[in-house]
Parts: sequence; structure tokens; C-alpha cells
Amino acid sequence: MVKDPSFYSACEHEWERIALQKRNDRENALAKFANWRTKVLEPTSDVSQLPLQKLTDRERNIVKYDATVLADLIRKRVYTSVEVVFAFAKAAVVAQDVTNCLTEIFIEEALDRAQELDQHLEVSGNVVGPLHGVPVSIKDHIKIKGLDTSTGYIGWAYKECADKDAVVVDILRKAGAVLFVKTQNPQSLLSLETNNNIYGRTTNPFNTKLTSGGSSGGESALIACHGSPLGVGTDIGGSIRVPAAHCGLYGLKGSVARLPHAGLLGSHDGMDAIVGCVGPLATSARDLELFCRVMLDAQPWLVEPPLLEMPWNKAVARGHGLPEKLSIAILWDDGVVTPDPPITLALKQYRDALIVAGHDVIDWQPLNHKEGWDLIVKLYLLDGGAEYHETMQKSGEPAVQQTAWILNHARGRGEYTVAEIFRLNLEREAFRAKALMHWNVTQQRTSTGRPVDAILCPIAPTLAPPHDTTSWWGYSSHWNVLDLPAVVFPVGRHKVDEALPQSRNGIERAIFTEWQSSTYDNAPVSLQLVGRRHNEERLLAMLNVVENVVSDRTSNQSAEVM
Amino acid sequence: MVKDPSFYSACEHEWERIALQKRNDRENALAKFANWRTKVLEPTSDVSQLPLQKLTDRERNIVKYDATVLADLIRKRVYTSVEVVFAFAKAAVVAQDVTNCLTEIFIEEALDRAQELDQHLEVSGNVVGPLHGVPVSIKDHIKIKGLDTSTGYIGWAYKECADKDAVVVDILRKAGAVLFVKTQNPQSLLSLETNNNIYGRTTNPFNTKLTSGGSSGGESALIACHGSPLGVGTDIGGSIRVPAAHCGLYGLKGSVARLPHAGLLGSHDGMDAIVGCVGPLATSARDLELFCRVMLDAQPWLVEPPLLEMPWNKAVARGHGLPEKLSIAILWDDGVVTPDPPITLALKQYRDALIVAGHDVIDWQPLNHKEGWDLIVKLYLLDGGAEYHETMQKSGEPAVQQTAWILNHARGRGEYTVAEIFRLNLEREAFRAKALMHWNVTQQRTSTGRPVDAILCPIAPTLAPPHDTTSWWGYSSHWNVLDLPAVVFPVGRHKVDEALPQSRNGIERAIFTEWQSSTYDNAPVSLQLVGRRHNEERLLAMLNVVENVVSDRTSNQSAEVM
Repeated sequence: MVKDPSFYSACEHEWERIALQKRNDRENALAKFANWRTKVLEPTSDVSQLPLQKLTDRERNIVKYDATVLADLIRKRVYTSVEVVFAFAKAAVVAQDVTNCLTEIFIEEALDRAQELDQHLEVSGNVVGPLHGVPVSIKDHIKIKGLDTSTGYIGWAYKECADKDAVVVDILRKAGAVLFVKTQNPQSLLSLETNNNIYGRTTNPFNTKLTSGGSSGGESALIACHGSPLGVGTDIGGSIRVPAAHCGLYGLKGSVARLPHAGLLGSHDGMDAIVGCVGPLATSARDLELFCRVMLDAQPWLVEPPLLEMPWNKAVARGHGLPEKLSIAILWDDGVVTPDPPITLALKQYRDALIVAGHDVIDWQPLNHKEGWDLIVKLYLLDGGAEYHETMQKSGEPAVQQTAWILNHARGRGEYTVAEIFRLNLEREAFRAKALMHWNVTQQRTSTGRPVDAILCPIAPTLAPPHDTTSWWGYSSHWNVLDLPAVVFPVGRHKVDEALPQSRNGIERAIFTEWQSSTYDNAPVSLQLVGRRHNEERLLAMLNVVENVVSDRTSNQSAEVM
Repeated sequence: MVKDPSFYSACEHEWERIALQKRNDRENALAKFANWRTKVLEPTSDVSQLPLQKLTDRERNIVKYDATVLADLIRKRVYTSVEVVFAFAKAAVVAQDVTNCLTEIFIEEALDRAQELDQHLEVSGNVVGPLHGVPVSIKDHIKIKGLDTSTGYIGWAYKECADKDAVVVDILRKAGAVLFVKTQNPQSLLSLETNNNIYGRTTNPFNTKLTSGGSSGGESALIACHGSPLGVGTDIGGSIRVPAAHCGLYGLKGSVARLPHAGLLGSHDGMDAIVGCVGPLATSARDLELFCRVMLDAQPWLVEPPLLEMPWNKAVARGHGLPEKLSIAILWDDGVVTPDPPITLALKQYRDALIVAGHDVIDWQPLNHKEGWDLIVKLYLLDGGAEYHETMQKSGEPAVQQTAWILNHARGRGEYTVAEIFRLNLEREAFRAKALMHWNVTQQRTSTGRPVDAILCPIAPTLAPPHDTTSWWGYSSHWNVLDLPAVVFPVGRHKVDEALPQSRNGIERAIFTEWQSSTYDNAPVSLQLVGRRHNEERLLAMLNVVENVVSDRTSNQSAEVM
């Protein structure tokens, strides 16, 4: 990236030198794979196919499989782990060149580990675990022992070299996964785009003018480029689901404390009022199930105190006990921002298909999403944003646009007192209680006699937005306020051109201004399915049903385990 | 209590008038049962048998049964609910006269409800639920629709008439329970004794010079007097277990969010950092199981958002899957205060019996209980105690001794900032993580190859202390810091006279000063069993095993369900 060492002296600020050094480190790691490097020569906005072009036919076959199939094929010795890791690593290097999605790169160690695993399998005949030999990518702020954990902050670069794996990483290793890269996250992590002063911006591989989403936007760009079959992200307002959706992937945010969460770096460590979740981004729904199963079969509650002792119920996740006729509520519009036409169209498509398949569909009356947003943003910033500001000020780095946007919500208000925090917690509980009753009373409107089983809804008001324009989180953060499990799934690629209604408020006006069909050229269209708290298994089983009602969908899911 | 209306004008302070009015209300409610009233004529410290003396033989039989048997006998129409409620109500009135344990009294409504239930059973042949016709008493700060909820604060008297039942109350009603009295809790609720400026002090029925414990000390005194078969308390530092233990009862504090908790009045509503639990006080271990089963069979997570969707596993609670050979760790001394001799003697008795019965027994190495205490008391008082002080100051009432003692822990420090609160939360998490590892590594010392299954330990350093002398919570609050389920059970009555070792610190010195065998004359001796988080069922199953190794114990448990 930077060839001329004199650039160093050209740095105006000390923080720029640190950023430069981090980028040089990354360049050095990439330099070992010079043959794989890719320059985008012609001006093109769709770079998603470039990684595949670098691969051999055999490699191309490999990187199109999901983790479930890869684990199976490695176990059956159709492919070696070395082959698989090599193919993904190659695509990952290209993905980095075309989307800027990586942070720490340790492909050689990964290939060594893959070789060990291959030998183990050859000698013993056994796999070490359900992910034996499968490469998995990790979001930057999740600790991997021995690696820097800069987490998108200049001030944390070269400071937070992890002395221990995060619990999720430890379990992945024990399950046989091969870690090989860490991926970009934005400054502050509190962003649905991915941009920071260390590495800059991660772009959407389907249209580089658009964001890959955030905060797990390195993961989504990488996986969409076939640079990893399975990635680990985190979500406190949409940070797994939004990037997964913007890049045409599957992503799951479970209920708080169901999946391992210890060993992350981030601002506001120790915050109880609203808590994030670790979760998977993948190319198939069944890989989400695989990830959860691996995590909970490891009984992580025996090492991480806050976790719930709720073992993974594989049978339920595969549909056991699910009623034949589901009752699905559709949330068409959250009352704040009408979704862009391609999203509404997708909802209609699923509504019609669900009805044809014999399911019950009702409209979801949205609770006050604006109230939910106003509440969660207060809970995010109990200290008025002081810790974020201090972290940036210490190193001298400026806030990037999306950091400034979110911190602006607390501008001038200072920190809350203990009594105010307690009142906010009570507001949150009252909001949750209202929402629970709201869900229960749908029983009066369904034809099944049950409350609705799930809510089908947008994940955002737009497809992947142009960089620095994200301004409404209400479709994703709403389910964090309520602590309900939510999963996103791809439904196709954008191709409609319809007009929007009159805007109802300032937020909507700003977002509607962006609406032009051409802006979102080639962008993935995704939807979200929301379930009852602690019912991740049932949610995934329902996703399977919902996906199957639309017959022409294209998905890895159709690849049979051999 | 107060006969002469001129006493009103004798009140020096307005708050005393309010207290007087509350006590007059109670007197008026009791006046309807003049025949049952009891005056303690001779100076006696053991008043526990006085209620029985007021009863007929048939009534005496009734009040000696536990809730499990009562439910069975009512269902089989051996007794009517009216008879049962009448017997307990009679004993409750006497219990009030001799221990000062009641607040709101609504026996007539209870008898009406009992009659309805009797008619329902007669007409339909069916019970309305598993507690059909069984009287249950409720701690004052738990809301019952239509009743004042003064909660031990002058300022809340006549202010907090509940417009809705607490979730636990609602479930009890639906299960057929008959509510008839509310019971005393201390000012501030943050006390292991029971004393407030409205009603004064509740005394221990076995020795009125001693406390009945707190904060559920109205419940413990009432149930020990046969004035209720089953009561509902709350516990954030020992408030179910300590009063149950001091009065020779069973009491369970589950993991946070397993049992319904919504609908309580108390200071610090909205506090997340440390959360209390609702739970049962009873005369048998099986009644604890019955209570939990009734609560969780009602699926309370469908009405109370924070609750865990963890259905009650009746089979596990009854011993399914429990290894034949248990590994029990004994905590002899928490490193701060050596327990008084009767407690150590009881631990030895159980150790020997467990070994004889073929179980594995090891010593528990206590984690730093002082550190745990220092931490939890900070979490209790994040605002420096401001809310407690304000509530008292508003009405002008002074702090009673135990309120002053606990608030003194935060004297002069003011409230914590957001950053400090986050750090305290992290300390709590680190403490929990350390404790979890500490438990796991016992695997290296057991003969079963498993980590220990449970910890057997004191519930307090002394038997029920003389009034206003409680000064060490570390044996009970430690398990609140760690959020582990804990149950207390009676093991006998005090009769030993041994010396204590040299004291090691100021806390111990103060407590040792109180040690004289005669001080605790007739006091119940109890122990505590602590299990793994979220494993309430397994804990109760283990309690059953542990109790049974000591063959000469006397307990309601031996009464067969007919």
C-alpha cells in the first residue's frame, strides 16, 4: 500500500504514523503471497468475482462450499485441510486487495496447523472435532492469543496483544477450526459501517460504492468474496446481521448470554445495561446451526460465568416439534422509515409464498421503534460518550463520520447519575414487558390459536447504503433492546425501480433522499426473521421453513452433505 | 395495641402518627379474631408452642403438615380448604401476637376464597391447580392487588396500594393457593434482621431475645409458629436463607431470573449490578420443589421478560441422573469469621455421615469472602446509599440500627461514576470467573473424577443473633455475588457449649464477643447447600441425599403423601 518510506516523515500527526505502521505490517504479511495480489485495473464497482478468478477450478469448487460440507469432505478425505485453507487464504488475499477487509494475517501458521490436522486424521483416522480443518475468520476485536487487537482504535494498536484466546476462539480451535485472518471492524465498534483510521474503509464487494455494513463488515466482505466459509462477528445493534445482509450472507444474533462472549476488546467493558452477542456469519443457514452447536456442545457456561446453561437442542433446530402450520407476522414498516422498494417487494414475495404453502400470515403492528432507538442509544452512551472520546483523544485520532454521528446523540448531555441509570433500566424493562405482551396478544389474530411464531421483517430501511450515509438502526437494534434472537438471510439481488411515498420525518427524509435504484446496483437483498427469546433453535428451524417456501432461491443450503 | 386515642396527639413526629395508624389498622384487622388473641403472661423466651395451644386437636394436625400433604389432603377432601385456612389463620394471629410477624391481614377474604375453592372442588370434582386451597403467606414488599405495600418504610405507607399482583402472586392464585396475610420486612430490606419504624421488631419464636432473621423475617417467624405452611420471600444477600435458617425452616434462593421477580416494591428498582431473587420458605424440602414447579410450570417467561426460559425439570429434582456417589465440599470457615461451635459440630456430623454413606467429602478452600463482601456492598450502594437516605428523610423517620449499619459501609463516599460502575461490574465478573475455575479444579481432589457436586457450609457465623448484632453476611451474600443457587435446611436445636479460637480480625472479634451458649438457648441450627448456577433441580435432589445420610433428623419430609 505504502511503498515509499519517506511517507513516514510526511505524516502530519503521530497517530498517522501508527496507522501507517499497522498498514505496513499488513503489507508485509501479504508480501509473502505476491502471486495472489490483485489490482483492480478497470474501474468496476462489482469486485465480488475477482477472488474466484485467481483460483484453480479445484480451488473454486472448494470455496463455494459451506462449512458443513467442507467439514464433511475433509473428514472423508476428499480434500485435505491444507488444500481448503490454501484456497480460502488465496481468495482472502484477493478479497483484502479489493475490499480492504483484513487486519491481522497469519496464513502460514494456519497452513502449519492444517497440516497437523491432516496428519492427525491420517494417522488416527479421527477428526479432532466437528470443524476439523475448516478455516474460520475472526473479527478484529475478538482476542486471538499472540495477536495485536487494535479494534479499530489507533490508541489500541500495539497495545492489546492478546495473552489468551477469547472463549469462542478457544472452542473453535478445540473443534478443529483453522484460524487464518482477523477482519476489519470500525472505530468505536458502534457503527453499522466499517471504517477506521488504521486501515480505512471496507467496501461492499458487490458494489464498492456501498458499505459492506458494520461493525462486522470485514467479515461480511471477506465471506462474500469466498475468502472464508465462516466468520465470527458481534452484534449489539445489528453488527452481525446488517453486514451479513448487505453482503448476501446468513447471520445470527442470539439472545444475550447464550453464546460465549468473554475475551473481547471494546469500549464500555463492564456495561450491563445493554449487552452484545457473539455470533456467526456464513453462506448457509445450516452453518449458523453448526456454529451454535459447536459452541454449546462445549458447555461454555463452565468457563464463562454469565452464560446460560442451555444446551443446544439439535433436534429442535432441525425442526422437531415445529408445528406444520406456522404463524408469521410481517413487519412492513417500523413507523419511522419505510423500507426501500426492493425490501418491500421481497417481503411481499415471502408473504405470498408463505400463504401458498399453507402458513398463517398476519401484519405485525410495530411497537414504537423510535422510542426503542432513543432508549438504546442512551444505554449505549451512559457516560455521554466520554470513554469513546477519551480513547480517541488520547491518540489524537479524529472520529470518523459514523463515530461522530452516533456520539452526536449524546452531545452536551454529560453522564447519567446512578438514579438516572436505574430509571433507564426500568424504561428498558417496561419496553420489553410491553413488547412481550404485544407478542402474546397476536394470539387473537392468528388462525393457529397460538401467538405468532416469528416476525419476518427488514433488517434495515435500505440495501447496503453508500458510505457514510447509514442513519437509521431501528430495524436491527430494536431486537437488541428486546433481547430477541434474530437471523438474516439473503433473498436475491436488487433489480427494481419504484418510487417511495412522502417522507414522514427527518430521518426518513434523509434516507429517502438516497433512494435511487441505480445507487444500489447489484446490492444483495436480505430479510430478517425474529424469534422468541432463548429459542435460537426454533428460530433456525423456522428459517428453514420460511426459506423453502420460495422455491427459486439460490443458496449453498442446497449443496448436499456427501 | 394502642387503645387510647389520645396517644395520637402524643406522637412527637408526624412519621410516628403514620406508624401508629398502620398499627391501628392491623389491630382493627385482628380485632375480628379476639378469641384467638394471645398475651404472653409469664416471661418466656420460647413462644413457638403458644399458637398450637390455641388450636383444636384437628387444627393442630392440620398445621403440622407441609404444603405438599395439605394439597393432597384437600384434593382428597380429607380436609376442606376452609378448615385448613382457618387453622393456619388462627395460628397466624397468635404468631403475630407473640412475634410481631404480620403486616396486612385479610383472613376473611381468604376464608371466602377457600369456600369458593371448596365449592369448585365439590361441584366439578377437580382442583384448580396444584396448590388448591393451601394457604400461602407473602412478604410485605411483594405486591398483592388492593393492598398497601408499605415495605417497612414510613414514607411508603398508604402510598403504594398495589394495582396489580406480583407475578409470583398471580401464579400462586392460579395454582389455587389462598393468600391470607402479608409479613414483616425490615426498613430498607437490606438487612438480615427484621425491624422497622412502622411495626417494630419481629422476634424469633424459639427465643424472643434473638432475631427471626431478615429480610424475610416475618415469614420465618410466622411459618415456624405454624401460622403458614409456605411463604414467599426475597433474597439479595441472604434474606430468604438466613431467616429460614434462624427459624429452623427450609429456604431456597435460586439463580437470578429463574423464578418470577416482577411486581416487587423496594429501593433501587432498576439496579442491574446485583439482582435479588424471589423464593420459598417452607417446612419441608419437597415444598421448595413444589413451589419452583408451580412457578415454572406457569411459563412465567411469557409474562416477565428477564426470566430464563428454563422449564422445571421435575425428574432431575427428584434425583434422576444424580450419581450414586456424590462429591461434597465442606466450607468450614470462610476465613473471616469462624462459625460458632454448634455450626461446626453440625458440619462434622454431616461430614461423618456422608462418608459413612459412601460419598466423597473434601474441604472447600474458601475464596476471599471479605473481597466478595466488599464488592457486593459497593454494588448494593452504587449511589452511596442516597436513595435509602432520601426515602427515610422524606418522611422524617430515623434509620433503625441495621439500616444504619449497612448504609455506614458507603458513608462519605458519594455515588460512583459510570466508569466506576463499569469497573465494579468487571470486578464482579472477574470474581465470578475465578470462583468458577476454583470450583472446576476441585476435580483434581475428588475421588469421583468430577468437580464437587455441591458445597456444604454454614449460612451464617452464628445461630440467630441477639437483636441488632448481625454484622457478617459473608456466608450468605457470597453466593449472591456468585449467583449460585443455595438452600438451607434445619439440622437440629442448639445444645453445645464449646469455646471459640482466638479472633483474627475486628469483624470476628465483635461476633465472638456474642458467643455464649446460653445466649442462643433453644435456637435452631441449620446448614446451607450450594449448587451450580441454573441447577436448582439438581441442588434439591442433592439436598434430599444429604439430609437422608443423617438418620435421626426430624422433619416434615417424613410425612408421607397419603
